[in-house]
Amino acid sequence: MAQRIAVIPGDGIGKEVMPEGVRALEAAAERFGIEIELTDFDFASCDYYAEHGQMLPDDWFDQLKDFDALFYGAVGWPETVPDHVSLWGSLLQFRRRFDQYVNLRPCRLLPGVKSPLADRQPGDIDFYVVRENTEGEYSSVGGKMFEGTEREVVIQETVMTRHGTDRVLRFAYELARSRPRKKLTSATKSNGIAITMPWWDERVKAMGANYPEVSVDQFHIDILTANFVMHPDWFDVVVASNLFGDILSDLGPACTGTIGVAPSANINPEGTFPSLFEPVHGSAPDIAGKGIANPIGQIWSAAMMLEHLGHQEAADAIVAAFEAVLAEGDRNVLTPDVGGTGTTEGMGRAITERI
Amino acid sequence: MAQRIAVIPGDGIGKEVMPEGVRALEAAAERFGIEIELTDFDFASCDYYAEHGQMLPDDWFDQLKDFDALFYGAVGWPETVPDHVSLWGSLLQFRRRFDQYVNLRPCRLLPGVKSPLADRQPGDIDFYVVRENTEGEYSSVGGKMFEGTEREVVIQETVMTRHGTDRVLRFAYELARSRPRKKLTSATKSNGIAITMPWWDERVKAMGANYPEVSVDQFHIDILTANFVMHPDWFDVVVASNLFGDILSDLGPACTGTIGVAPSANINPEGTFPSLFEPVHGSAPDIAGKGIANPIGQIWSAAMMLEHLGHQEAADAIVAAFEAVLAEGDRNVLTPDVGGTGTTEGMGRAITERI
Ligand SMILES: CC(C)[C@H](C(=O)O)[C@@H](O)C(=O)O
Ligand SMILES: CC(C)[C@H](C(=O)O)[C@@H](O)C(=O)O
Repeated sequence: MAQRIAVIPGDGIGKEVMPEGVRALEAAAERFGIEIELTDFDFASCDYYAEHGQMLPDDWFDQLKDFDALFYGAVGWPETVPDHVSLWGSLLQFRRRFDQYVNLRPCRLLPGVKSPLADRQPGDIDFYVVRENTEGEYSSVGGKMFEGTEREVVIQETVMTRHGTDRVLRFAYELARSRPRKKLTSATKSNGIAITMPWWDERVKAMGANYPEVSVDQFHIDILTANFVMHPDWFDVVVASNLFGDILSDLGPACTGTIGVAPSANINPEGTFPSLFEPVHGSAPDIAGKGIANPIGQIWSAAMMLEHLGHQEAADAIVAAFEAVLAEGDRNVLTPDVGGTGTTEGMGRAITERI
Repeated sequence: MAQRIAVIPGDGIGKEVMPEGVRALEAAAERFGIEIELTDFDFASCDYYAEHGQMLPDDWFDQLKDFDALFYGAVGWPETVPDHVSLWGSLLQFRRRFDQYVNLRPCRLLPGVKSPLADRQPGDIDFYVVRENTEGEYSSVGGKMFEGTEREVVIQETVMTRHGTDRVLRFAYELARSRPRKKLTSATKSNGIAITMPWWDERVKAMGANYPEVSVDQFHIDILTANFVMHPDWFDVVVASNLFGDILSDLGPACTGTIGVAPSANINPEGTFPSLFEPVHGSAPDIAGKGIANPIGQIWSAAMMLEHLGHQEAADAIVAAFEAVLAEGDRNVLTPDVGGTGTTEGMGRAITERI
């Protein structure tokens, strides 16, 4: 039976990198005899908002819920729609309603990519950030009092549940156990965030009882960000709340020079709803329309999607293909962010040829 | 009239670096004819907690409130007292009760200090983080429901006020205006933290109306941490909420290789209560007792204290002294964190000799 995939380009460079993601996906599917069926959607974009006054149609949930996976580009166009409107109206809805409670993001120093860190070689940095993806600091609970006056008070609640925390911790422990180093690092801030974070630490410890073979440490988020820069080789699997995971999964790829390249898997591990795969980068209004965005974030996301759907070989072939193109370092092929003069499409085609 | 300074070493390496901070302070005071009067306190430490079951005596506020400044080492000894207990019982009390609403932290690439970033020279990185220091995400408001069961829910509130936000923004705009580049960067996360952060953005914009000469930009905290690594030269003054400022003011010094060296000023700009000066680093249980902690964080904090008290020349002399010792690069003098084999006391004495 064909794997049914929803293709949602979104905004800005999302519309430019998506065709390359699809090109790579189709090539890998063909080579490994995987039947896929792609369906395009124009919603979850600010263009759609301009026309309809909302980011999604009323029946979006029913339209999408039976797909095997969602393949997303990027969303956001702050010039016309404020970010909290466009994001809460699209990506953050998908994550919650489809219960994609794990956001999994690899941080890896790739051959041919210049890291902003001194003296680091491919192999030195290779870890995953496992981010809680549905609750925590990303809440819309709260409000204002004495609005518009000098006495104005604004309150926002962080909401964590044992249900929501334990399941992402379990995923992180399982992942750590499956890797050679078997090491888990927890991001906390229990010295300042006095209620949720000491509790988070307790849950990490409690879950650890089931995984005696995994060694666990924890850092406060401030020094943890510092250690990403100073000692990126320390990390294997890093587990974090929604906000801390958001920060660490941008910082990690920045340290490996791959912020324009990193993929993100929003996973519903039980498969009750489709998982979503997207590049870490945003819609990048500053370079949108120029055709120079690096397509690897989208292409690597296609690989994570294939892996999630059980096609490990096809996923590996995609990763090998973009690693080869990066390692070759042909300036005419590479996009400007990785030191070349090439285009999104040119680089996409070069990668697809190697699949 | 003598400047009255409370000396509070705290825990761990705080007790080792404080004598060097005092040594430098006394030398600078003598050279510039500043009368100072130092008073030692053993509270606000985990040793004190062990004896008294609390971090501070009941009358701490009255004991400290009439000092001209507080000179603090570091606090925390998680082996015996959980961090949220020791910190909420000491440093965080000082910041709040003495209304030290600005936390000011310089990030500067210093001569002779190796940065983990590739290809960066002294002069390339030179900015301040201005952190809100009394409210926001650091709250103890909230609680638990269904505690200890599968249905457990934990809630923590972020509380921001116009009063608290506007005053720190004003300080940041004033600082930006006083610097050659006149550039302010605001840390936000209005796409995810849907109530407090869009409001923070509004306050930044509103305050900006009073400072047309300052150019302002903003980044979401995730990409901002990435930009600290990729483009540290972009920044001049960065203003942030309590939590975001905490993160950025560890990450910034990490990028300049000065995490063990960076100072922190907790300022009450109106002088209604004493301000507090401390190194950014913590009590570092892993190296405590070895006499190898770098004393510059404490010594640089002494310089910030003298500057705050109106003694700019004395402050400059201290900064010049430790910069000279770093630039000379004598391995016998430098502590291990900056590539030497020296001791805390040896390095402290070398710096003081040059004042
Ligand atoms: C120790 C801790 C509570 C403190 C903070 O988070 O404010 C520290 O990290 C700092 O930056 O001064
Ligand atoms: C766009 C934004 C809401 C989103 C997030 O913060 O989750 C993005 O930064 C990400 O990491 O996927």
